[in-house]
Amino acid sequence: MRILGIDPGFATIGFGLVAADRGQTRMAAYGAITTPAGLPLSRRLYQIGTDMEDLIGRLKPDVISIEELFFNTNITTGIAVAHGRGVLLYAAEKCGIPLYEYTPSQVKLAVTGYGKAEKRQVMDMTRRLLKLEKVPRPDDAADALALALCHARSVTSRLPQKDVPETI
Amino acid sequence: MRILGIDPGFATIGFGLVAADRGQTRMAAYGAITTPAGLPLSRRLYQIGTDMEDLIGRLKPDVISIEELFFNTNITTGIAVAHGRGVLLYAAEKCGIPLYEYTPSQVKLAVTGYGKAEKRQVMDMTRRLLKLEKVPRPDDAADALALALCHARSVTSRLPQKDVPETI
Repeated sequence: MRILGIDPGFATIGFGLVAADRGQTRMAAYGAITTPAGLPLSRRLYQIGTDMEDLIGRLKPDVISIEELFFNTNITTGIAVAHGRGVLLYAAEKCGIPLYEYTPSQVKLAVTGYGKAEKRQVMDMTRRLLKLEKVPRPDDAADALALALCHARSVTSRLPQKDVPETI
Repeated sequence: MRILGIDPGFATIGFGLVAADRGQTRMAAYGAITTPAGLPLSRRLYQIGTDMEDLIGRLKPDVISIEELFFNTNITTGIAVAHGRGVLLYAAEKCGIPLYEYTPSQVKLAVTGYGKAEKRQVMDMTRRLLKLEKVPRPDDAADALALALCHARSVTSRLPQKDVPETI
């Protein structure tokens, strides 16, 4: 099974492809989609959508594992990321790829065995589990590989996508 | 000039088309895109995107006037609306339609002459300016017509789209 992990964003969107087969996991690709500062919001969103479709076409994932969005500090940043994440989900649906969402705690738990692990621990365990020499860069790509690993290690429990509020 | 006002949302997205010509404004169409509760988030986002493209193809607007997003009360609702708004902007860009964003205060000021007007006052002025018998329903459609009117009345000042943060 080819699992595409996605770390949602607006200026930088990390991706990481993990091939999982009978308990073995292997890194198949990683990188980032970036959008240039200075372009209008809608132009950057359009680029996110088309780049995501190209990426799916090239990497041919069986499933996508994407981080759930929480707002904590900066609301303005959060709105832009939520705009981008909406377009990423749209593109995945357009390509007919099943989607799974995981919280940061679920990723930490699945990768390190501890739901409150530090970011560095998660990255180092991701590197070790995928037998890589170094932690992949940028961080967004390493986060995306951790998301793919999380799905590989959670796949027996088959977490469904969360429901959304009925009326907004 | 055909101005398509959009009141962004997730379960319900209002739209309203205003034809503006030499200071005269006329309501040309209004209504709402709705997405069924119970479908997965990504499926609803995909529907928002395709319905928006169909709408643009049918109504053939010259410009789109869409409300800026502010988060005030419910963050969970706000995230879903921001996801939907991202897809709406993506669809507008895909169709090559120029976009203008207005804050609620700008809409109130343009339609009623008072930036802190009550929602009811805005709706009633929208009805009067467009010579309609009743305030259009649902409210989302009336809000969308107000957004279109706002652009018609602000068009000489040509507010550009706001810049977005450099790095996220």
